[in-house]
Amino acid sequence: MYIPTLDDMIAARARIDAHIHNTPVLTSRMLNELTGAELFFKCENFQKAGAFKARGASNAVFGLSDAQAAKGVATHSSGNHGTCLSYAAGRRGIPCTVVMPRTAPQAKKDAVRGYGGRVVECEPSTSSREAVFAEVVAQSGAEFVHPYNDPRVIAGQATCSAELIEQVADLDAVIAPIGGGGMVSGTCLTLSNLAPGIKVYAAEPLNADDAARSFRAGHIIADDAPDTVADGLKVPLKELTWHFVRNHVTDILTATEEEIVDAMKLIWKRMKIVMEASSAVPLATIIKNPEVFAGKRVGVIITGGNVDLDKLPWNT
Amino acid sequence: MYIPTLDDMIAARARIDAHIHNTPVLTSRMLNELTGAELFFKCENFQKAGAFKARGASNAVFGLSDAQAAKGVATHSSGNHGTCLSYAAGRRGIPCTVVMPRTAPQAKKDAVRGYGGRVVECEPSTSSREAVFAEVVAQSGAEFVHPYNDPRVIAGQATCSAELIEQVADLDAVIAPIGGGGMVSGTCLTLSNLAPGIKVYAAEPLNADDAARSFRAGHIIADDAPDTVADGLKVPLKELTWHFVRNHVTDILTATEEEIVDAMKLIWKRMKIVMEASSAVPLATIIKNPEVFAGKRVGVIITGGNVDLDKLPWNT
Repeated sequence: MYIPTLDDMIAARARIDAHIHNTPVLTSRMLNELTGAELFFKCENFQKAGAFKARGASNAVFGLSDAQAAKGVATHSSGNHGTCLSYAAGRRGIPCTVVMPRTAPQAKKDAVRGYGGRVVECEPSTSSREAVFAEVVAQSGAEFVHPYNDPRVIAGQATCSAELIEQVADLDAVIAPIGGGGMVSGTCLTLSNLAPGIKVYAAEPLNADDAARSFRAGHIIADDAPDTVADGLKVPLKELTWHFVRNHVTDILTATEEEIVDAMKLIWKRMKIVMEASSAVPLATIIKNPEVFAGKRVGVIITGGNVDLDKLPWNT
Repeated sequence: MYIPTLDDMIAARARIDAHIHNTPVLTSRMLNELTGAELFFKCENFQKAGAFKARGASNAVFGLSDAQAAKGVATHSSGNHGTCLSYAAGRRGIPCTVVMPRTAPQAKKDAVRGYGGRVVECEPSTSSREAVFAEVVAQSGAEFVHPYNDPRVIAGQATCSAELIEQVADLDAVIAPIGGGGMVSGTCLTLSNLAPGIKVYAAEPLNADDAARSFRAGHIIADDAPDTVADGLKVPLKELTWHFVRNHVTDILTATEEEIVDAMKLIWKRMKIVMEASSAVPLATIIKNPEVFAGKRVGVIITGGNVDLDKLPWNT
């Protein structure tokens, strides 16, 4: 297992610079008053393809040799990683195949295709996904880019907090949502090297609290079919992300579904930005744990903005 | 009738600097490709109190003598002007009274009160509003700040395009929604003096096209009970705003309700920002009139972001 290093993050930053946004940091006086903290929202909802995953995907794609690139990239993801890999592949002009359950939302398939990627449908089961994916790779020779358990992807996500600490001085903590742990791992990679005084917190839906339970148990525990409105956060930790979480995360905090939706709506209403339910989990946990964050300067990663506007969680 | 001047805008800018945001300008590659133009969105949805009207309201409030300020300010508005006047008065620590129909949405009343203002309810008729408002002014001696037909308000709104032309070089045109005409008048004031080569366009709902009809007729025509999703744009021009519209606007373009809602949803989906239906009218008209804007660098004023998230127009 190769653990990505600070040099990998620095190389990633140079490699992806032309393909991603240095996203803005927004603040809200009202949310500061509500929480007693100074919050600095790093807005990856404004990122290319609408999510921080454009960073890791771009780093993987633009790091390929020309020979490998010609064969393309492939992944299985019905979320932002598939869209972002398609985006990055489109920028390089190479093939991208995303294996998705045929039951995945049409909007997700359209998003992959919108950037030029190919969608290959499988049945909604792990066995079908693995079989179809193996066939895709066997036929094309495409490079598999895992959504998070990949050093290239983690080094790419790590560029986000490198920007953040240039944009905001003297942070006490950074908090990000945790699903598979790619963003949290990247945050740990950068901060443990460049700003070890900044604590890293992870925020997780109580309904998918495998990372919090793993953190307490000291080994990876996977959820059994978790169900949460924060649909990007259902996936389990893997060995590479577990390495960073175990060694560098201060705590993993959880929030209920209602707390997540309330925080999401609050951000939309007061900050006027469109962001995903997953991105609201950090604020939900900050509101819930004022003793942890009050008086602190806290970076909050808003991870993505790809929302189905026809199915907002407070309207269902 | 006093016509505000460039000096009034410059004075306004210094006066309100500490109380408003220099709002960011956002771009979208996808929307540029769609329209064939280069669009620069001036995001007043991120403005204090959620709308550009914080500019004019702050200029009026902070321009008052101490003696007048002690008696407070008053207006009649169930929209952003009431909220923004309450915001500005709160910043100066003076009383603010907003007369609103008792049938106005609770959220609008709460917004005024949230900044410290007082809501006085009237019956939902012009005669009741005028009678109640006259009583408020008679009792308090409060200064009336009209939502748009007021040189202090227009000079305040004019600061928006002064920022815009510092943020974006070589604009060919600026387009803003038009209701009463305060933002369009302020835009005309600034650009006709500082950048007379930039054309000013106004965008209006077809269902409330009094300004477009006035523009063609050469005199003010008021709508009779217009109904549009762009609820900030129902009010008619008045003599002061008509002066600027008549003399400096290149054209007034209109869009249907469906075109407005489609443009609103497109901006939410692609730009990840929460903004009002009124703010989508310019993009709707740009999409509809490609021959006017293709190849041009166009500033687009996103006027506000105070949306009822429980009643989005595409969910009703």
